[in-house]
Amino acid sequence: MPDSPEVDLDEVYNFALELGQAAGKILDDGWKSRCNGDGDNKTVEKDSAVDIVTQTDEDVEAFIKEKITNRFPSHKFIGEETYGKGSSKEYLIDDDPTWCIDPLDGTVNYTHIFPMFCVSIGFILHGDPVIGVINAPFLHQTFSACRGKGAWLNGTQRLPLLRNPIPPMPVNAPQSCVFACEWGKDRRDRPDGNLYRKVESFVNMAAEVGGREGKGGMVHGVRCLGSATLDLAYCAMGAFDIWWEGGCWEWDVAAGMCLVREAGGLVTTANPPSNVSDAVIEDARPGSRLYLAIRPAGDCARESGREGQERTVREVWRRVRQLDYSRPGA
Amino acid sequence: MPDSPEVDLDEVYNFALELGQAAGKILDDGWKSRCNGDGDNKTVEKDSAVDIVTQTDEDVEAFIKEKITNRFPSHKFIGEETYGKGSSKEYLIDDDPTWCIDPLDGTVNYTHIFPMFCVSIGFILHGDPVIGVINAPFLHQTFSACRGKGAWLNGTQRLPLLRNPIPPMPVNAPQSCVFACEWGKDRRDRPDGNLYRKVESFVNMAAEVGGREGKGGMVHGVRCLGSATLDLAYCAMGAFDIWWEGGCWEWDVAAGMCLVREAGGLVTTANPPSNVSDAVIEDARPGSRLYLAIRPAGDCARESGREGQERTVREVWRRVRQLDYSRPGA
Repeated sequence: MPDSPEVDLDEVYNFALELGQAAGKILDDGWKSRCNGDGDNKTVEKDSAVDIVTQTDEDVEAFIKEKITNRFPSHKFIGEETYGKGSSKEYLIDDDPTWCIDPLDGTVNYTHIFPMFCVSIGFILHGDPVIGVINAPFLHQTFSACRGKGAWLNGTQRLPLLRNPIPPMPVNAPQSCVFACEWGKDRRDRPDGNLYRKVESFVNMAAEVGGREGKGGMVHGVRCLGSATLDLAYCAMGAFDIWWEGGCWEWDVAAGMCLVREAGGLVTTANPPSNVSDAVIEDARPGSRLYLAIRPAGDCARESGREGQERTVREVWRRVRQLDYSRPGA
Repeated sequence: MPDSPEVDLDEVYNFALELGQAAGKILDDGWKSRCNGDGDNKTVEKDSAVDIVTQTDEDVEAFIKEKITNRFPSHKFIGEETYGKGSSKEYLIDDDPTWCIDPLDGTVNYTHIFPMFCVSIGFILHGDPVIGVINAPFLHQTFSACRGKGAWLNGTQRLPLLRNPIPPMPVNAPQSCVFACEWGKDRRDRPDGNLYRKVESFVNMAAEVGGREGKGGMVHGVRCLGSATLDLAYCAMGAFDIWWEGGCWEWDVAAGMCLVREAGGLVTTANPPSNVSDAVIEDARPGSRLYLAIRPAGDCARESGREGQERTVREVWRRVRQLDYSRPGA
């Protein structure tokens, strides 16, 4: 697909990188200010931190929106704060140049000052995330990617980190894989609800080989960070082999999807199709709310990197349940 | 209890801090060397990384052991590599000055180059961890504590991070709490085995209030990092409110327990006693293999910080299962 004639990706990428640094600085100042007691620490209950954090969230989004609107007035803007809290959840991304922003991903982590929080800046063209900038200021980690330019950590270290050569997927995946997942917000105690389907899937992935009536995946480790954006960034890095999640929104994943794809990874749907063995493995849409990411993988004698990724997708699909997340217009 | 006359805690602490920096540098060089391809990257399978990592693990422990033996020849040394892999798992810590070391905690993370790995250096006197140094070099985070001197991040930021004032435990804990836990290595698919008891406990902590026959804890978030040492460090920091785990060993927790206690937190047993409501809440021994840590908590009008922590311990105990981890001599 041709780019819109008016979009200069280099210009947009440089702008997004600057924006990521500035927005990350606001987040960084925010938690430090709370530590120094020059925030609203007169309210000693930690619950009240939620209000302070919400204010930071809104401030960062307003800051980003203003910068974008000034520089690229013709571009659309979708932000977690302004759009995500509205009553409509219609999927609004079309062919137009669109910014898709989460000013603060990992909000619970930020509230508790656990370092896994970040600002996520995605730029979407013709429906595809083509630029992604993720800044996790407490970790001193900025992830960035632009279509055709690869994915990077702190602008200097190309992703995936292991690339001389890039390791193929393990022959016995999901064994030997680090499996990232999230418990999410849907904690309703309903028979066969999303909570139970997730947990059943986690247990299948974790249990010993031969266990769970053959579904035991014996993954190398199970990780839950509380940030979909950073889950994707660590997939791009090669640190997480598999990320499986349902329920998050396009602003949670737009930048991260660009990262994973530019690094050589794959993002498809979390929900197994009926024909797991031979279904065509399609790219996930940013707004699909159901994601399965596989890290970049190198070729080896037995298969190409892509074949190894697709084999891993099918092995995950054999072990996970369908999740029930829908949206208007999807 | 009086210190052994020959132990100068200041001297030992300064030595441990230097040791943590030097050992962390070896870990840092190790993963960077693998990225640069000047490691043994001719073996492209990621599984073979396990051998490289094991070598680093052993190298770091040998380095630490030599430094300690040279400087403090009368001190005992217990390390994960030399002791943990032996056939005996007798608990060897007694009243003598003893170093308790995990040269590489978060081994799976290190293998996959996920940043949550660290070296853990604990110093134990009369059975109590009195010095702890944890260096996570990828994260640029060094945690340290010495009895009577508080707990620190990077030597400059006192823990917990929020301390003007330190927030009390949430009135409705475990609601509003970040709950850290680990899936661990015991993945046997046995009826009511540790895997199932852990998962049942996780689900109780996560499910909506009123769910799970009243056990639903609706925690604010569930986190799994794959490093017991860093779980404890983030409890000391105040980022994790609750950490509940069974199965790890004294070298995984010695430094972290010192951190949590010096920061003002509490570490007791993971396994609920029969009299949850009125059991005396005792400090966990480093070798108990069953740990429940609660973050530092401030006083408030309704209760002291300690009362809030104990209330939280009992609320966790009401929701978790007993785990089956034993050891010879325990």
